[in-house]
Amino acid sequence: MKILKNIQPNDWSKYMSRPILENEKLTYIVNSILISVKANKDLALKKYALEFDHVNLDALKVSLAELEEASSLVSGELKEAINVAKDNIEKFHSHQQIDEVAIETTKGIKCWRKSVAIEKVGLYIPGGSAPLFSTILMLGLPAKIAGCKEIILCTPSDKNAKVHPAILYTASIIGIKEIYKVGGAQAIAAMAFGTESIPPVYKIFGPGNQYVTKAKQLVQLQGIAIDMPAGPSEVLIIADKTGNPSFIAADLLSQAEHGPDSQVLLLSNDESIIDRTMIALGEQVDALPRSIIAKKALQNSKAILLDSIEDCIEFSNQYAPEHLIIASNQAMQYVDKIVNAGSVFIGNYSCESAGDYASGTNHTLPTNGFAKSYSGVSLDSFVKKITFQEITKEGISAIGSTIEIMAESEELFAHKNAVTLRLKKIGNV
Amino acid sequence: MKILKNIQPNDWSKYMSRPILENEKLTYIVNSILISVKANKDLALKKYALEFDHVNLDALKVSLAELEEASSLVSGELKEAINVAKDNIEKFHSHQQIDEVAIETTKGIKCWRKSVAIEKVGLYIPGGSAPLFSTILMLGLPAKIAGCKEIILCTPSDKNAKVHPAILYTASIIGIKEIYKVGGAQAIAAMAFGTESIPPVYKIFGPGNQYVTKAKQLVQLQGIAIDMPAGPSEVLIIADKTGNPSFIAADLLSQAEHGPDSQVLLLSNDESIIDRTMIALGEQVDALPRSIIAKKALQNSKAILLDSIEDCIEFSNQYAPEHLIIASNQAMQYVDKIVNAGSVFIGNYSCESAGDYASGTNHTLPTNGFAKSYSGVSLDSFVKKITFQEITKEGISAIGSTIEIMAESEELFAHKNAVTLRLKKIGNV
Repeated sequence: MKILKNIQPNDWSKYMSRPILENEKLTYIVNSILISVKANKDLALKKYALEFDHVNLDALKVSLAELEEASSLVSGELKEAINVAKDNIEKFHSHQQIDEVAIETTKGIKCWRKSVAIEKVGLYIPGGSAPLFSTILMLGLPAKIAGCKEIILCTPSDKNAKVHPAILYTASIIGIKEIYKVGGAQAIAAMAFGTESIPPVYKIFGPGNQYVTKAKQLVQLQGIAIDMPAGPSEVLIIADKTGNPSFIAADLLSQAEHGPDSQVLLLSNDESIIDRTMIALGEQVDALPRSIIAKKALQNSKAILLDSIEDCIEFSNQYAPEHLIIASNQAMQYVDKIVNAGSVFIGNYSCESAGDYASGTNHTLPTNGFAKSYSGVSLDSFVKKITFQEITKEGISAIGSTIEIMAESEELFAHKNAVTLRLKKIGNV
Repeated sequence: MKILKNIQPNDWSKYMSRPILENEKLTYIVNSILISVKANKDLALKKYALEFDHVNLDALKVSLAELEEASSLVSGELKEAINVAKDNIEKFHSHQQIDEVAIETTKGIKCWRKSVAIEKVGLYIPGGSAPLFSTILMLGLPAKIAGCKEIILCTPSDKNAKVHPAILYTASIIGIKEIYKVGGAQAIAAMAFGTESIPPVYKIFGPGNQYVTKAKQLVQLQGIAIDMPAGPSEVLIIADKTGNPSFIAADLLSQAEHGPDSQVLLLSNDESIIDRTMIALGEQVDALPRSIIAKKALQNSKAILLDSIEDCIEFSNQYAPEHLIIASNQAMQYVDKIVNAGSVFIGNYSCESAGDYASGTNHTLPTNGFAKSYSGVSLDSFVKKITFQEITKEGISAIGSTIEIMAESEELFAHKNAVTLRLKKIGNV
């Protein structure tokens, strides 16, 4: 990590830079995949599976037999852990269900909103060496709680056409049965446009590499909703002298091990905390299986000494981190000052990995500064709120002339007439 | 209107088609405007004002003197109407403020969400012959209630460099003082990237023509949030025999007068209601100042006779209209069956123009079938919900092993270690 001291607020923005992801070649490649899947459907998906994943797929859909087999391949210990996490995530997301009552804005005019589940949603789970089953909990549980009718899941298979049992097991216990062996941009295309095997959905969720991310952006332009824009994962830790350098180092590494482009920042008003964290980092990093990745990420990372915790919070608000950890015994006193962040971890025992897996909060969060305007995934992401209004004769009589005057001023006379006719019928004109 | 009878559910989708808006030339033109504004800032804005709006602008910002003058140019009657609408819109949107309480998902683990205003938002109000001041209420009021710190507004001036007084007056009473004389795609570019005069914002709201819509899509790809994708305005009316043909005709025309591409649909299980509505349409349309526009829109519009109101609701759910009017004395009994719609108007006295102006609900709604996955603008649109968690020693002890097992299964050992170190410190290992 680079250690920076005595930097001035005017220069802060220099240290907030993030990688630039736009790339014309990427757009071209992904666009051609979208076009191909739209035209050739299952055939295109099987062709890409062979080309990119080196697997010859007979069927795209995971069979019932595969689902049943998966359960026997997951250890009891992992099943139990998934169950504990599931309970907490369910509790937190069920708690987000709110019945808004109607309000009478004027006598005779009742207005309300109702949350209605998005009927068809698609979840994408990336492949790779490790099965990201935790993301199925984070996306599948709120989808189920919201009441989405069709929930499908796409994830690439391995070279033997198998999907990792932990993925299948986790999907099963949530009740997701429509699982397809498709990865990458082609999976996003399949869920957006539909194929012979895969039904199209209205909204697509889930993380992925730059191809997946670009595909989500491009199908969004065609009217398919997506969870949020994405970039490399990030953590910003604010530590005062009551922080624990060993914990801080471990939390920084939790982020750094995600990938060489992970963004890791440490801010403190205490020079000794920074120095001791650097020592702890050195001690911990070599023991990690992913130490090469973590070291690369750390090369681009910064530890910055600022004048006060207030300055640290101000810096963080300008950066808008995906994850913000406040490593301090007095963390709660800073909470009200936080304006831009995806998810905030308060105090020395609130580690990011708790939120990543099992505390109950969602781990699908806005990166790349998007926390300035986007929320993380929640129950809200799986519903739309429909507005309703019921206006009686008394109600329209009360606001009729208001509508007539406004409509006339906007030169929309049919709008005015719709009211005038009703007022006449009531006998108010 | 085309009248269709005896159509089968399998053929419904034929009658749900909407205009296709994608256009490569449009993308090229708008992209070049974005690039020009990003590079040349105010200079580009003034050049486009001259080129497109034929106005020579000295200053882009509306002056205090102009704001003060505007108030004297708006009639007392219109001021009073705006005030009534403002009150109702404030009531409905204030009612959407919800303080979520924290939940303890496991003993020692407290999780909660907090709504925090998006700091910088930009509102776009189109120009044209009529001043769309009602949209300022619909966007500005929730922005203020949410607590957005910087609210700016862009709208094109006329050829004399004047903005319509009703626009300036409405913005003033809400407390919006940063108003800029910029229209079209260049206004969206200015708010996205910033210029010497115009500060950049995090999220852009507001309606506009195809250039504005395309510009919003393109800046969204660059990380600026937008309210929602857009298409031509729509109404779908479901009427049973208790509907009022004269009211229905007026409501259809309210939509049709917006533009020749407006989408207007009438569904009924009662042939006589359709026939009588067609007669009323003929009687009303010629009296409208915008009758030529309305007639064009009606040419593409359909009245469809279906077997039952249940079929009408099912058709509507598949179409997902922006506005849905249920013209029936028994309208409330159908409400629970509505799955996809932007805003629903219940009963014969709930006309769309009430919601467009003054009942309290928002008129910025998802068109083009986006109601399947998007909500209309609400207080939610101006905040992001930040997640917080506070975990005690007791809390991490309770879920520590769960996290360790899950992290290890996902091969993320630094994630595991962040927990292990804490459990060791507590003395749990």
